[in-house]
Amino acid sequence: MSFIATPQSMHFAEALRLQSGASIRDYTLAYETYGELNAARDNAVLVCHALNASHHVAGMYEGQPKSEGWWDNMIGPGKPLDTNRFFVIGINNLGSCFGSTGPMHKHPDTGEVYGADFPVVTVEDWVNAQALLLDRLGVAQLAAVMGGSLGGMQALSWTLQYPERVRHAVVVASAPNLTAENIAFNEVARRAIVTDPDFHGGHFYRHGVIPQRGLRIARMIGHITYLSDDVMNEKFGRQLREGMDLKYSTQDIEFQIESYLRYQGDKFSEYFDANTYLLITRALDYFDPARRHGGNLAQALAVARAKFLLVSFSTDWRFSPQRSREIVQALLENRRDVSYAEIDAPHGHDAFLLDDARYMSVVRSYFDSIAKELQGEQP
Amino acid sequence: MSFIATPQSMHFAEALRLQSGASIRDYTLAYETYGELNAARDNAVLVCHALNASHHVAGMYEGQPKSEGWWDNMIGPGKPLDTNRFFVIGINNLGSCFGSTGPMHKHPDTGEVYGADFPVVTVEDWVNAQALLLDRLGVAQLAAVMGGSLGGMQALSWTLQYPERVRHAVVVASAPNLTAENIAFNEVARRAIVTDPDFHGGHFYRHGVIPQRGLRIARMIGHITYLSDDVMNEKFGRQLREGMDLKYSTQDIEFQIESYLRYQGDKFSEYFDANTYLLITRALDYFDPARRHGGNLAQALAVARAKFLLVSFSTDWRFSPQRSREIVQALLENRRDVSYAEIDAPHGHDAFLLDDARYMSVVRSYFDSIAKELQGEQP
Repeated sequence: MSFIATPQSMHFAEALRLQSGASIRDYTLAYETYGELNAARDNAVLVCHALNASHHVAGMYEGQPKSEGWWDNMIGPGKPLDTNRFFVIGINNLGSCFGSTGPMHKHPDTGEVYGADFPVVTVEDWVNAQALLLDRLGVAQLAAVMGGSLGGMQALSWTLQYPERVRHAVVVASAPNLTAENIAFNEVARRAIVTDPDFHGGHFYRHGVIPQRGLRIARMIGHITYLSDDVMNEKFGRQLREGMDLKYSTQDIEFQIESYLRYQGDKFSEYFDANTYLLITRALDYFDPARRHGGNLAQALAVARAKFLLVSFSTDWRFSPQRSREIVQALLENRRDVSYAEIDAPHGHDAFLLDDARYMSVVRSYFDSIAKELQGEQP
Repeated sequence: MSFIATPQSMHFAEALRLQSGASIRDYTLAYETYGELNAARDNAVLVCHALNASHHVAGMYEGQPKSEGWWDNMIGPGKPLDTNRFFVIGINNLGSCFGSTGPMHKHPDTGEVYGADFPVVTVEDWVNAQALLLDRLGVAQLAAVMGGSLGGMQALSWTLQYPERVRHAVVVASAPNLTAENIAFNEVARRAIVTDPDFHGGHFYRHGVIPQRGLRIARMIGHITYLSDDVMNEKFGRQLREGMDLKYSTQDIEFQIESYLRYQGDKFSEYFDANTYLLITRALDYFDPARRHGGNLAQALAVARAKFLLVSFSTDWRFSPQRSREIVQALLENRRDVSYAEIDAPHGHDAFLLDDARYMSVVRSYFDSIAKELQGEQP
């Protein structure tokens, strides 16, 4: 049983200039906060979300059992990121489909639903929007910014876009950019959505349909890449769904893993927005702070002032430990203060959301030391 | 410039009983042979194909430049499998779409195109059909059976189904069964095809359409799994397709890897049959000789009498070296004669089709020793 969380939202009338050159105005950001901002206003921690998550980071909604936030095991009273000590903020990113302005909302000029016309948003754009919301909350400097996967990219980007506003960055299961293979998986998922006849060029809302076939395929591909080969073999292996006899069918479910994937695909296609899927995978593809520095990551990270904790997981083949080590190396070349933990966990990329004693303990210690730092003690 | 190959075909009127319990009659197998069967009839080598290949293993068709067979670098006069010494046979598997009877042909009873009603065929069924064709060619015993990937599974299965008919088995980039992750990728590809509105439950032929969207997605997924992360980064990395400027679009091509994948998907969807794709991926899923032995592979391989060469490739994550080592281990437990080469190659699963000096040399030596054995010399 977790604590009660209350979603909030904030409206921004002024136009936000986006990296693409486009801009967006009259948008809303959904967010939640847990714990209390202290008098010194120096105990705020921003938690950034990945593809499929939201501002509902921890706690549960009143009267809704099973509504725990996506990082409820990590964040809350007495948890590794302890809301008795820190003021934690979760913000749903622009273009997402969980409360902040996104493709299913209306363009303020035309009154038409954005659909495929929602502007392309990047990690940098999200960070800029988050910064505006923090301004309104009176948070000038973050004790820490934290995220896993795409959330880790946002945390890293914060230290580059607003170096003076971030004291610590906790970057979990992330990467300095996507590999060609990562982009390839995103592209297949996007093609599955875009070529679904119910996509209608991204304006499916006005046709009263949803490109569910495409979303199912996209989610199934995603799921395979979140898990390790080992954990799939351990959880499902070659188990048949029904008894011992093969059915000899190409279309019926034969193996448990097929049943699991279809279930995940079906569930996802009922709540996730197709245009949001395109936008968020594109934001992943585009993130590459070294790009403007000829691929030199150390040069790109030279502006960072924060202290860093990087965490990776041994069986994560989507964002492998090697990618985290690239960030560590680039930070060390800039003589930044970096801690790095490579957790030997069987669960693949998903490990960053799961309970693992060593992982939890590394994060707990890191936030303990931040808390001591805030109290003026030596960390 | 390779030698000229001539496709042939053989009709089988008698019913072939399939593993599923169904049977098929009045079917045709397309095949090719290269080299000459010697007087002792002991120099025949059967080469089994994988998902996307056929009986056209080597050589080229008269007047058709660029029509080289899929393993033309491996097989031909003076090549590692030397057709000056061996009589090489390639057979298109039942259910495929390159000349043998498949889903686009008519059921002899009803006169209707099989479509989704084509019976499910397994690796074991293919081997049985191949054996019937060899009977007709007068090949009682094979000097060797050889194959890569799914072809390697057939080679392995030959040694179990017809232990006395195989002197050597060359099993390249293969596995004793699929992992859960392998099955998962197959399942996503199948769902993309089956849920394409143009699939029409597998009877799309009569609607005059082809489920091209699904085939494209299936092929894109396949391609990602054939290549290693390393070779993708080396070939494509994060290169943009056009110049240096980002377009900021979710649907247009931005990165080279996207362009490459879309091209591969388009090409494949124009020539490959959707029902064949389902059948062949299912045959992969089902193959598991240890299944009837409670998962004990050593027990399953106890009947084999052949000598073995196993080859795997370091960066193959679809059929990793670990899977080949499982076969080697199980054969050694049965005191079988096994050679094993783990080739350090960057190309992933695709490596088995590519030129690699060490790989070619291992196969060449192995066939040299078979040739000596046939001449009665000590190998």
